[in-house]
Amino acid sequence: MKLKVKALDLSTGGPLVVVLDDLDAKKLDLHTLDRVSVKRLKSKKEIIANIDISAEGIKPGIIGLFSESLKRLGVEEGTHVDIETAPKPESIEIIRKKLDGHMLTKHDLRTLINDIVNDRLSEVEITYFVAGAYTKGFTLEESAILTEETVNLGFKLNLNKEIVIDKHCIGGIPGNRTSMVVIPIIAAAGFTIAKTSSRSITSPAGTADVMEIFCPVSISHEKVQEIVKKTGACIIWQSSLNPHGADEKLIKVRHPLSLDPEGLLLSSIMAKKKAVGATHVLVDIPCGEGAKFSYKEGKELKKKFIKLGKRLGIYVKVVITDGSQPIGSGIGPALEARDVLSVLEGNGPADLQAKCVFLATEMLSMVGVKDAKREVMEIINSGAAYNKFLEIVRAQGGRKTLAIPTARYFHSVESPKKGVVKSINNKLIAKIARIAGSPEDKAAGIYLNVRRNNHVHYGDVLFTVFSNNQKRLQFAQELINRSHNKVVVVE
Amino acid sequence: MKLKVKALDLSTGGPLVVVLDDLDAKKLDLHTLDRVSVKRLKSKKEIIANIDISAEGIKPGIIGLFSESLKRLGVEEGTHVDIETAPKPESIEIIRKKLDGHMLTKHDLRTLINDIVNDRLSEVEITYFVAGAYTKGFTLEESAILTEETVNLGFKLNLNKEIVIDKHCIGGIPGNRTSMVVIPIIAAAGFTIAKTSSRSITSPAGTADVMEIFCPVSISHEKVQEIVKKTGACIIWQSSLNPHGADEKLIKVRHPLSLDPEGLLLSSIMAKKKAVGATHVLVDIPCGEGAKFSYKEGKELKKKFIKLGKRLGIYVKVVITDGSQPIGSGIGPALEARDVLSVLEGNGPADLQAKCVFLATEMLSMVGVKDAKREVMEIINSGAAYNKFLEIVRAQGGRKTLAIPTARYFHSVESPKKGVVKSINNKLIAKIARIAGSPEDKAAGIYLNVRRNNHVHYGDVLFTVFSNNQKRLQFAQELINRSHNKVVVVE
Repeated sequence: MKLKVKALDLSTGGPLVVVLDDLDAKKLDLHTLDRVSVKRLKSKKEIIANIDISAEGIKPGIIGLFSESLKRLGVEEGTHVDIETAPKPESIEIIRKKLDGHMLTKHDLRTLINDIVNDRLSEVEITYFVAGAYTKGFTLEESAILTEETVNLGFKLNLNKEIVIDKHCIGGIPGNRTSMVVIPIIAAAGFTIAKTSSRSITSPAGTADVMEIFCPVSISHEKVQEIVKKTGACIIWQSSLNPHGADEKLIKVRHPLSLDPEGLLLSSIMAKKKAVGATHVLVDIPCGEGAKFSYKEGKELKKKFIKLGKRLGIYVKVVITDGSQPIGSGIGPALEARDVLSVLEGNGPADLQAKCVFLATEMLSMVGVKDAKREVMEIINSGAAYNKFLEIVRAQGGRKTLAIPTARYFHSVESPKKGVVKSINNKLIAKIARIAGSPEDKAAGIYLNVRRNNHVHYGDVLFTVFSNNQKRLQFAQELINRSHNKVVVVE
Repeated sequence: MKLKVKALDLSTGGPLVVVLDDLDAKKLDLHTLDRVSVKRLKSKKEIIANIDISAEGIKPGIIGLFSESLKRLGVEEGTHVDIETAPKPESIEIIRKKLDGHMLTKHDLRTLINDIVNDRLSEVEITYFVAGAYTKGFTLEESAILTEETVNLGFKLNLNKEIVIDKHCIGGIPGNRTSMVVIPIIAAAGFTIAKTSSRSITSPAGTADVMEIFCPVSISHEKVQEIVKKTGACIIWQSSLNPHGADEKLIKVRHPLSLDPEGLLLSSIMAKKKAVGATHVLVDIPCGEGAKFSYKEGKELKKKFIKLGKRLGIYVKVVITDGSQPIGSGIGPALEARDVLSVLEGNGPADLQAKCVFLATEMLSMVGVKDAKREVMEIINSGAAYNKFLEIVRAQGGRKTLAIPTARYFHSVESPKKGVVKSINNKLIAKIARIAGSPEDKAAGIYLNVRRNNHVHYGDVLFTVFSNNQKRLQFAQELINRSHNKVVVVE
């Protein structure tokens, strides 16, 4: 059926969607979310898109294309296209198989990941997959295959090293910026560590957001290989190598119910480790009130990480740490960057320092270093860690001097009474920092003056919110006021 | 945050969706599918909508509103509105509870159905609910509560009769238009039967589409009560009384995977029976190759219908029938209407007649009529069934003479060889009839000349496709040609 293109000046954020008039859809017996092939006349260009049927705005003989479809097909307003019904991709049956509780084969998982990565599934269909993964789970074997297929579809680093160390933190705890300290220590100890890190999704900052203050973190595959060979390490944004990975496509539909199916979590993490050729991986699972997992859940997850590592030929060690309050004083890219530099210089917040030393010690012990803690302390105190950090920053294209931006506006929150800090709310801290502008506004965020069990007097500053935008600082203040002293609880 | 409205000339088909610029969304820490309250300035009008974030088309300071939101809020292009973040509805936690495998309480189910009916959930959220219902199922008690809550939210008929009979067919079989024969028989026997029927969704025709040839089927609540009191029966479109019911909202997201979670199926059917005050219900489950259910599945479903009926105080009887080929000769509204009239006149296709007699006999037996089959035959042969049908048609506002439209174009398909009809493909038959224009084009559809096991010669007509649109008839022919004699298989 020949139709005339109407350019819809909107993006869907990924999936290819075209809009048909109700009557035209009936002529081809098409329902909402069915698929059509859309072809340019006198051209071989073709896309397969999901259809939406609109009661308004699209007249018979017209097809509305959202911007992704316009670009992919290379057409504009008024171009004529030919559509016909297209079959459902094989993934539909595979998703149904998972919802029915069956194990997916290697072929199934490969097909599915391929269709997700290539935007061949609609939001509703991807939602069914996430629901299937959540309710029916994955066996160890399925997680392993999913990991391998994800790696096959993305980039792989080839470092030719017998030992490649890596670390991962499950996240969810504001501050807690350990990688930028631990990686230089491991590299300074003579080991290879190619770390790919996330940007923030719902947190105030990811390691990539913080590292970006000092140097670029979106670096090509070839360049990364060079940097790691030269310095023994890198600290880059994971998606710079894999911008259209399955993870990125799943985030949107996982958000409304905050679903994080374990099978997807495990394979997504392990795929990133496998892709850089890691042989030894330390996984940090912060647990407790306000963390992503309870201690009981953390212990269950620990077993699965270790088993999956074995199946994939990676030695995985898991540490369960206290995730009940922020770690470090700074929350937000610049404020965390300041903490990181202090710890690398042998100072910094005691909790962040202790955690970095603990993790680095565990990692060196994993690869057989004796008296690892002494070595870690030596690497910090001698300045070797700091120098290695500078070396990595420069290799990634950073400037020689490390400059950290500061915010123009701030607002301090004082203790409403004398007492003891009973708790600090991770979720509220994160929310306030984000509303203040973190992570886009690098200098925005929170500086925490207290930790749990600290004694405070009436009027002592509990924390300070920073922002470069007065309006956003005001929005943050409003949230603090609405939270009735629940951000930092003093009793 | 104050924003200026951009009118998006498109409908979403239900859910309220507004589109924000990426930067504006960040200022309020909003993610795609989060909710905002949108208020008109200097007015109390407010809607809660899901947000979409667009990389194009929407500039900072602008908010895009799809037509549902424009109407509901009563604003237009250029109006200023104020938005702020709105909390997730309680249903989100309830959906998650179901995905986690927990039983839902009366409060949960009432809240959920209410939010679905009132367009408070996004497509992705409703998809998670369907997936939860599919993977975790409903207990008998949950199905019963869901039925009752659905009835409470919709219309209820109050007939003041001790016995109200009803019937339901699970569907999926082309033709099979039994209700329009059975209902007049039951009413002619002196019983009350208030039948609400569906329109076609994926089939060539629903009972409501066929009945509409003779009289209106969208009839108000009060009028229906009057008609049933007068004639003992009605044959109306179920959604005319409940146009914004939960079923209607769920269809869209169930379609891509063709999911029909049993718990939703059971309660949706029983809610319609409960709403008309049915005391005795006969359920027909056609089973076999090409039907919705295998015989094994049909038997399982049968038990559940009976149990649920008991819990709801309705006597349910279930018959399992042959669903492996179409029933009757006509497929499509006018062609089925012709079959129905013939059977009411004591003639018509033998398979349709036998099935109607069987169902009517079962129904009369359920309410204690002795020698029911003899009575059914007597009602048909005396003309009482036909006269009762005319009475119902007139009470619903139909004309005195029954006229059935005919199609301008047709295409006959002949047997490619001498042999025996091995099978008739329900799905292909339905698809061809729909492409030819059924059910919108009332005269479009298929007339089947054969049934399974019939002997045919080379060149005998197997079936004829009818349409009022040459182009659509051509599309239907193309599908037949692509199907390589698999529509009616002769061996």
